[in-house]
Amino acid sequence: MNYKNDLILRAANGENVDRTPVWLMRQAGRILPEYRKVRASLSGFKELVETPELAAEVTIQPVDLLGVDAAIIFSDILVIPDAMGLPYRMEKGVGPIFDDTIKSVSDIKKLKTADPYSDLKYVTDAISITKKELNGRVPLIGFAGAPWTIFSYMIEGKGSKTFSEARKFLYQEPAAAHDLLGKITDSTIAYLKSQIEAGVDIVQLFDSWAGILPKEQYLEFGLKYLRIICDAINEVPITVFAKGAWFALEEIGKLNCNTIGLDWHTSPEMARRLIGTEKTLQGNLDPCLLYASDKDLVKETILMLNKFGGQKHIANLGHGVYPDTKPEKVKLFINTIKEYKF
Amino acid sequence: MNYKNDLILRAANGENVDRTPVWLMRQAGRILPEYRKVRASLSGFKELVETPELAAEVTIQPVDLLGVDAAIIFSDILVIPDAMGLPYRMEKGVGPIFDDTIKSVSDIKKLKTADPYSDLKYVTDAISITKKELNGRVPLIGFAGAPWTIFSYMIEGKGSKTFSEARKFLYQEPAAAHDLLGKITDSTIAYLKSQIEAGVDIVQLFDSWAGILPKEQYLEFGLKYLRIICDAINEVPITVFAKGAWFALEEIGKLNCNTIGLDWHTSPEMARRLIGTEKTLQGNLDPCLLYASDKDLVKETILMLNKFGGQKHIANLGHGVYPDTKPEKVKLFINTIKEYKF
Repeated sequence: MNYKNDLILRAANGENVDRTPVWLMRQAGRILPEYRKVRASLSGFKELVETPELAAEVTIQPVDLLGVDAAIIFSDILVIPDAMGLPYRMEKGVGPIFDDTIKSVSDIKKLKTADPYSDLKYVTDAISITKKELNGRVPLIGFAGAPWTIFSYMIEGKGSKTFSEARKFLYQEPAAAHDLLGKITDSTIAYLKSQIEAGVDIVQLFDSWAGILPKEQYLEFGLKYLRIICDAINEVPITVFAKGAWFALEEIGKLNCNTIGLDWHTSPEMARRLIGTEKTLQGNLDPCLLYASDKDLVKETILMLNKFGGQKHIANLGHGVYPDTKPEKVKLFINTIKEYKF
Repeated sequence: MNYKNDLILRAANGENVDRTPVWLMRQAGRILPEYRKVRASLSGFKELVETPELAAEVTIQPVDLLGVDAAIIFSDILVIPDAMGLPYRMEKGVGPIFDDTIKSVSDIKKLKTADPYSDLKYVTDAISITKKELNGRVPLIGFAGAPWTIFSYMIEGKGSKTFSEARKFLYQEPAAAHDLLGKITDSTIAYLKSQIEAGVDIVQLFDSWAGILPKEQYLEFGLKYLRIICDAINEVPITVFAKGAWFALEEIGKLNCNTIGLDWHTSPEMARRLIGTEKTLQGNLDPCLLYASDKDLVKETILMLNKFGGQKHIANLGHGVYPDTKPEKVKLFINTIKEYKF
């Protein structure tokens, strides 16, 4: 396909770009009044995720309204446990809740490997519609949760401050933990391949809870499965975002992926020192800078661009954009990047 | 005072010890059935904190029942905002809640600097009783929250995944943020001095939310106030535990304190490389290892001891002990340390 704007693909592939591409994690979502309007017409978040026409609509909104250099398919990392037989629901003010959780080896045995072509057809349908409607304006990003993060949700049943249940499981049932992580990994590979077949141009793995594990345990139960996924996906560039995993950055840098996402604690200097110059970096403005004055936001955005140095960089925040962020601030962030000349 | 066991003081002062001293963050609390019995007789957590005889009783329980080398006064870091005029309550299954929060400069003006001799007499009374009942068996640790962590609670009103309200305040109202942090700092210094006067032998500052801020912001709004407190307290050794602040460890190492607490991500090797050999280190076993088999727990505890090297080390977990931990596992952790010969 010929893109009108292929900056993000060029950057992910390590090619030179005239300017830094930019998108935002969670750009399709609550920050946009247009999103909230679509959402208000529905029974809940899951209905939006599972209705391809509407998921496609909110996926494209930030391309039209904010001018980002990529769309990311509107979905949720928890569709995988759902497709494996462990359904979740979204509770207002709380977040995702699993009424059943994984407590034993026999619970794991009951789970199936997700078949994306039947269980997750609503995602690939949304991708097909989005691709058609985008019509080459910008590339489309697909995504999945990293196995360790999905595993944590399946054990805990919800978010947690300590994830001590999931971590307890690793210490008490290491073999069963590997079984479950393997099943999630198989499901995730099939899912990402189905997304690629449906048309996504790049995929990102989100390891939201990477930062909770001691290093040796993260290498054994986290990174191992990221490596299997990265080795299995060769069709499109891959981005790995392991939030909080500064202690394993050197090892993450050796994954068979194109781009490494950085949170706002990890400086580009530190990342380059640990992972070298080959890979592209993505990130990493503190999302709270979008609450600052225009002057401070512009100053810090330019400082960030200069720290990354202009090439092999995809600009983003160091975390998903927070729901109460003003769209004007997001536009200023984006336009500052688009107008900046190195 | 002559102590029967002054290992923790000797280690904090950098003196040689025959074996590594050990205590656990949150050792006085829900892990002990004897604590739960005391707690069950009361209306709530705050009543226990505010009843000196009972606070002293649960403070001493882990000395008697677990054999730790120090007691830590049973209290809460949130007594400081309470004493400044911003009361909190403990909600079951949720944690601390402030019904009023700080939203503006005028809210800050309404707060007073805590007077520990009137507002926090229940803490110093508990310390006096504890000291008398301990009768020199082991030293007593006093503590306070770090100003940034207390500030976060006062703005957010409760725990948070992102602390985006508190961080927004830093970007939007930096001068007011410094005012509030200064008021908290003054209150905290007076409070720690009152604890020392009542008899604590060592004090620890808990910066539970240090890990959320970008480095430059942590230096400006976090570390600055830790430095003021460390410079003001010269009577007893100070420990600083800034959880998650790996990115500022070098600067933390320059504080005028004796001991640096480490979470389970920060290896002793990294800490020594960044802060040198002068200070004592405290920590840092993953609290989830107390869920592991006895064999693994002993193996990892000994591995930890060897990594710290036997001197200038106070053994502890890398976080507070989790509530569902079995006392037998805690005892095994403690006894492994007490019996280990370098």
